[in-house]
Amino acid sequence: MYSPKPLILVSNDDGITSLGIRTLVEVMQELGEVVVVAPDSPQSGMGHAITIGEPLRLHATPIFEGIKAYECSGTPADCVKLGKHYVLKDRTPDLVVSGINHGSNTSISVLYSGTMSAAIEGAIEGIPSIGFSLCDFASDADFSHVRPYVKQIASNVLANGLPKGVALNVNFPKKSEDTLKGVRICRQTNGKWQEEFDKRKDPHGRSYFWLSGNFVNFDAGQEDTCEWALENNYVSVVPCQYDLTAYETMKLMQQWQF
Amino acid sequence: MYSPKPLILVSNDDGITSLGIRTLVEVMQELGEVVVVAPDSPQSGMGHAITIGEPLRLHATPIFEGIKAYECSGTPADCVKLGKHYVLKDRTPDLVVSGINHGSNTSISVLYSGTMSAAIEGAIEGIPSIGFSLCDFASDADFSHVRPYVKQIASNVLANGLPKGVALNVNFPKKSEDTLKGVRICRQTNGKWQEEFDKRKDPHGRSYFWLSGNFVNFDAGQEDTCEWALENNYVSVVPCQYDLTAYETMKLMQQWQF
Repeated sequence: MYSPKPLILVSNDDGITSLGIRTLVEVMQELGEVVVVAPDSPQSGMGHAITIGEPLRLHATPIFEGIKAYECSGTPADCVKLGKHYVLKDRTPDLVVSGINHGSNTSISVLYSGTMSAAIEGAIEGIPSIGFSLCDFASDADFSHVRPYVKQIASNVLANGLPKGVALNVNFPKKSEDTLKGVRICRQTNGKWQEEFDKRKDPHGRSYFWLSGNFVNFDAGQEDTCEWALENNYVSVVPCQYDLTAYETMKLMQQWQF
Repeated sequence: MYSPKPLILVSNDDGITSLGIRTLVEVMQELGEVVVVAPDSPQSGMGHAITIGEPLRLHATPIFEGIKAYECSGTPADCVKLGKHYVLKDRTPDLVVSGINHGSNTSISVLYSGTMSAAIEGAIEGIPSIGFSLCDFASDADFSHVRPYVKQIASNVLANGLPKGVALNVNFPKKSEDTLKGVRICRQTNGKWQEEFDKRKDPHGRSYFWLSGNFVNFDAGQEDTCEWALENNYVSVVPCQYDLTAYETMKLMQQWQF
C-alpha cells in the first residue's frame, strides 16, 4: 500500500465541471496522486452545510482523464467526508485542497464559503488543507497567473504541514496586466456585507426577494489584512481555525451573575 | 419610534412550527417586543449557508398570537438578514436569539449548526446574539427546565451586552430527574464526528448513502469544556467569535519560503 507520491483529495463548491477545479487538478497532478470528489452542481454560499435529511448520491466520472473522480449530490463538506471515509477508506490523504473558487472568499465571506468548508472539513479530519479562491466570478476566468502560486503553497504545506485545527484560506487577485507581487500571510479582514434585498413580483403577482449587497471594510488601509493584500496585487494567505471560542470573553463572563 | 421595551428578533433552524421556537418566543415576550423571522421548513445542518442562487419568499403568519411573525423559504442566516434589513428596516434589534434547537450544538457541531449561524449573523450585524440548543432531538422534547435559564441568560446579555464579534452558544442538558446545577462558561470541546456512511440500494438498484456517525471527544474529562458541563448537568455557555484567524499560525508561517 506504500505510495511514494503524496495522496491529494480535491474538492470545490462550484461543481466538478468548473474551470477552477480543472486548473487545481492539473496543478496537483504535478505534486502527487489526485482523487477528486466534488459536487455535481454549484454549491456556492453553502457555508459548512452538511446533508442529513436526505440521502447522498455518488458517481464515478471520467471527466478528468486518468484521474479517479466522483461527483456527489451533496455539499462540499459532504464531499470531503465521503472522500475520506468511503472513497479512500483506509488511505488518509496527505493534503486536501478545495477550489479554485470562481470568486473571492475573503473577510467574513469565509463563513459563507463552501470552498473553505471543504478545507476546514479536511482540517477537522487532521489533514493539512487549503482552500483556493480567485477574485473573479466569471465562469471563464483566467487562472494562468495563479498556477505557480497554487503549486508553491501546496508544496509548502506538504513539506511543513499545518498546526492541528488550522486550514489555509488562499485568495488570488483577478488576472490583470500587473504581475502578482508575491504571498502575504494575513489576518481575516473585519468587514461585513451590507445587505440589500431586491424585492420583485413574480408573474402571479406574489413578491419575492433577491439577496444582494455591498462589502463594507471596517479595516480599510490595514496592511495586515487579506483585503489590503488583494487590493495591492498580493496573494493573500489567512490561516483559519475552527475553534471558535472567544477566550477573552470567557474571562469577562466569569464576572456575570447567573 | 421610541420603544421602552427591548426589541428582540427570534429565529431558529428547526422551522417556525417547532416547539423549541415557541418556547423561546414565550420566554422572550417576558423581556421585550418580539419579532419572529424563521424558516418555513427544517434547516438543520445548514451551517452558515445563505441563498444566493434562487429567490427568497417571505410570508407573514399568525402562528404566534399577538406577535409579528414571518416564515421564510431561506436558511437561518437568510432569516436574520431579511429580519434586520427588510422586516425591521430602520429599527435595530437589541437582541437576536435563535432556537431553542431540538438537538445539541456543542463542540465541532457549532460549524454545522443553523441555529448558531443565525446567532453569528446577528453578531456580524453588531447585535448581541445567542443561540440556544437542548440536547434532545425529540420533536416533543420537554423544555420546561430550561425556561428560567433562557430568561436569565438573555437578561444578562441585554444588561451587559457582548464584545464585538462574539455570539453565545448555549446548550442545555436533556430534561432528567436531576435539577440543573447552574451555568458554566466553557470553551468549545475539541472533538469530531467519526463518519459512517450507510450505503443502501434504492428500488431501482442504484446505491445511495445516509450520513451518520459517532461523536469523538478529544477533550474527555476536561472540566472547562462544553461537553463536560453537559455531561455533569450544567448549562454550557461558549462565547464564539467569527474571526477565524489563527494568529499563532500567522507568526509561524512568516518563516516559510515563498
